[in-house]
Amino acid sequence: MSLIGRLRTNDDALRKRATAVIPGGMYGHQHTALLPPGFPQFFERADGCRIWDVDGNEYVDLLCSFGPIVAGHRHPKVEEAAAAQLARGDCQNGPSPVMVELAELLVERIAHADWAMFAKNGTDATTMCVTIARAATGRRKVLVARGAYHGAAPWCSPRRDGTTLEDRAHLIKYRYNDLASVEEAADRAGDDLAAVLVSPFRHDAGFDQELPDPGFARGVRQLCDRTGAALILDEVRTGFRLNHGGSWEWLGVEPDLAAWSKALANGYPIAAVTGTDSLREAATRPFVTGSFWFSAVPMAAAVANLDVLRDEDGVARMERAGARLRQGLADQASTYGLSINQTGPVQMPYLSFAADEDHERGSVFSVTALEHGAYLHPGHNWFLCTAHGDEDIDRVLTATDAAFAQVRRQFGDG
Amino acid sequence: MSLIGRLRTNDDALRKRATAVIPGGMYGHQHTALLPPGFPQFFERADGCRIWDVDGNEYVDLLCSFGPIVAGHRHPKVEEAAAAQLARGDCQNGPSPVMVELAELLVERIAHADWAMFAKNGTDATTMCVTIARAATGRRKVLVARGAYHGAAPWCSPRRDGTTLEDRAHLIKYRYNDLASVEEAADRAGDDLAAVLVSPFRHDAGFDQELPDPGFARGVRQLCDRTGAALILDEVRTGFRLNHGGSWEWLGVEPDLAAWSKALANGYPIAAVTGTDSLREAATRPFVTGSFWFSAVPMAAAVANLDVLRDEDGVARMERAGARLRQGLADQASTYGLSINQTGPVQMPYLSFAADEDHERGSVFSVTALEHGAYLHPGHNWFLCTAHGDEDIDRVLTATDAAFAQVRRQFGDG
Repeated sequence: MSLIGRLRTNDDALRKRATAVIPGGMYGHQHTALLPPGFPQFFERADGCRIWDVDGNEYVDLLCSFGPIVAGHRHPKVEEAAAAQLARGDCQNGPSPVMVELAELLVERIAHADWAMFAKNGTDATTMCVTIARAATGRRKVLVARGAYHGAAPWCSPRRDGTTLEDRAHLIKYRYNDLASVEEAADRAGDDLAAVLVSPFRHDAGFDQELPDPGFARGVRQLCDRTGAALILDEVRTGFRLNHGGSWEWLGVEPDLAAWSKALANGYPIAAVTGTDSLREAATRPFVTGSFWFSAVPMAAAVANLDVLRDEDGVARMERAGARLRQGLADQASTYGLSINQTGPVQMPYLSFAADEDHERGSVFSVTALEHGAYLHPGHNWFLCTAHGDEDIDRVLTATDAAFAQVRRQFGDG
Repeated sequence: MSLIGRLRTNDDALRKRATAVIPGGMYGHQHTALLPPGFPQFFERADGCRIWDVDGNEYVDLLCSFGPIVAGHRHPKVEEAAAAQLARGDCQNGPSPVMVELAELLVERIAHADWAMFAKNGTDATTMCVTIARAATGRRKVLVARGAYHGAAPWCSPRRDGTTLEDRAHLIKYRYNDLASVEEAADRAGDDLAAVLVSPFRHDAGFDQELPDPGFARGVRQLCDRTGAALILDEVRTGFRLNHGGSWEWLGVEPDLAAWSKALANGYPIAAVTGTDSLREAATRPFVTGSFWFSAVPMAAAVANLDVLRDEDGVARMERAGARLRQGLADQASTYGLSINQTGPVQMPYLSFAADEDHERGSVFSVTALEHGAYLHPGHNWFLCTAHGDEDIDRVLTATDAAFAQVRRQFGDG
């Protein structure tokens, strides 16, 4: 299967049309401007862990739609549940019974969760968490890790264009895994500290990932207990990939609020907030809603997806596939005499090259892997799903072998 | 068909379960706490303009999911297009070709639109408009009508719980249809005026609706031209119900930016921003995105829905059904000697009773209509859809006849 010199005829034609009717031709996290030249912008079809661009090129998908696809594209049980609900009703004058069923399921599976609320976007969920924390405490300051991504609303967007200073007036920055910096930020907030917002591990785009230091996680929990601030865990990227419940449960650290979205319904649009009883009353006060927040189909998909993940032992499957990939990549890099960093949980891996500050080696690596049939990202963590079997990972490794070889040819060893 | 004394057994049981796992049992605009006692919270099924609650009670739907349903629940052509796209792919690593098709369609149908961008919620779209206007002008102040609803994010939510003063630091209020108040607000903004945000007509919840004074609309346009501020039209509630293009096109007034959502895809979750060439470059600068913003199924549904509306002459159909309803209601009120106000466009009607400040008559009216098989809202405008035929409207009128009779019995005439 030689895939070098892939056709981009249809993609080029669509980009040309898009440029006329969409500013910049595309925007947001899926804009190929954030990728090296050579990546397709438009996609035709997806099935399991395989995707096809609009020129018919097939790839093993290591990005999984930037996270939402966790049981493989078009998992039959998820699709069946969604279709059955769709035949009855989706967006109505009120929720369907499945909303209650899903809330009960989240409360059952997630250790800290005494209740759940639903929305559409990860940004909706992180914003709701901050709003509920402020309503509960009557305070304003929120501590956030420098460089962390918590959504694209003006208060948290990584770009400042079109935002005002007031949008971030009550954010105070700390450094991830640096408890002293959290304490220092809390001191600056004084008696106005509403919440500490934290990701289960550090997954800032463009950087090596960092697992949480247990002392950091426990220290943040103690700080919140001491100050009465809410500990908010941003599970939007991590949720249901690291654990069937919350991602910090292995640390024995429970948040007061958590924001969920991406993998919750295997690609169907939904977000959720879970919280503890101490915040239940506060959660009733802000007016938070959206025209499609109570639609039943994504909720039915979420219930089915969570059951599929549990029944198929989804987290263990992703870990197994991720471990095979990590070992294979390590072996290949060693063979080619290339120094790489593989960071983060194996099922949400990130690979970078040593001394590659401008991501030049990473770019060549990803483009060459793409040409050989593996879709992975040079500047964002990858996502595995339960559809990645040994054969799929081996096919990825065939592509990455060619990619490492190309890096070695262009940049030498080291 | 006597429907009085409707069963609520299943609804009651679901509410009880919901109260355990959802704060307050429900939240947002679909919470029955915003309705008189007697309304069902949970729905089982929908078809055309008919809906069924979880106890099997059938209603003619005059709320249409608070707007999203415009061609009737489960319109076959919309469902067919959505299913065909779903079989290929929905949430992928990039958009599908249908994103370009939909952007082209909006540019073709909407007079001011030179480009389009997509999101999930109405709030996403209004927030994006404000952000783009600020990016374009380098200014901060945004004029909004007192009492208008533009979404549920902290900067615009109708409730202040959990928000900070800074969230609204750059909003200045004016009175709808009062050009002098807009001029005054613009004076207060001085050289920091980024945008004027305005709804196509006044549809504040709980109040009689007001159509726009053409002089007001043109005056706001002139003010924006004079000051270089962006005129943002919030079409989230109105879009594609009043016109197949923009809702102010009949006035000869074109906005610079418009926010769309609800009726765009007949219930599938999507929002859009359209804009003029002068704002195209600015629209590329803010980082706005969401995990599900580029999903293909709602876009395919939107393309089909817009074609259905045009092919079926949807706006004219809704106007015809709305006119029949308005005339019928006027005749009934007159027969019972009751003084009512019917306001807003006939396809987005609102009915209130004279001297009914606490909405007591409106509550009795809506609950009695509900018991007789018509689902309408006492404090929010209603929405007609193209599935409302003469027979459906007549069935509504049978229910409202009983409802007017009940109001007359309880409150006397006047």
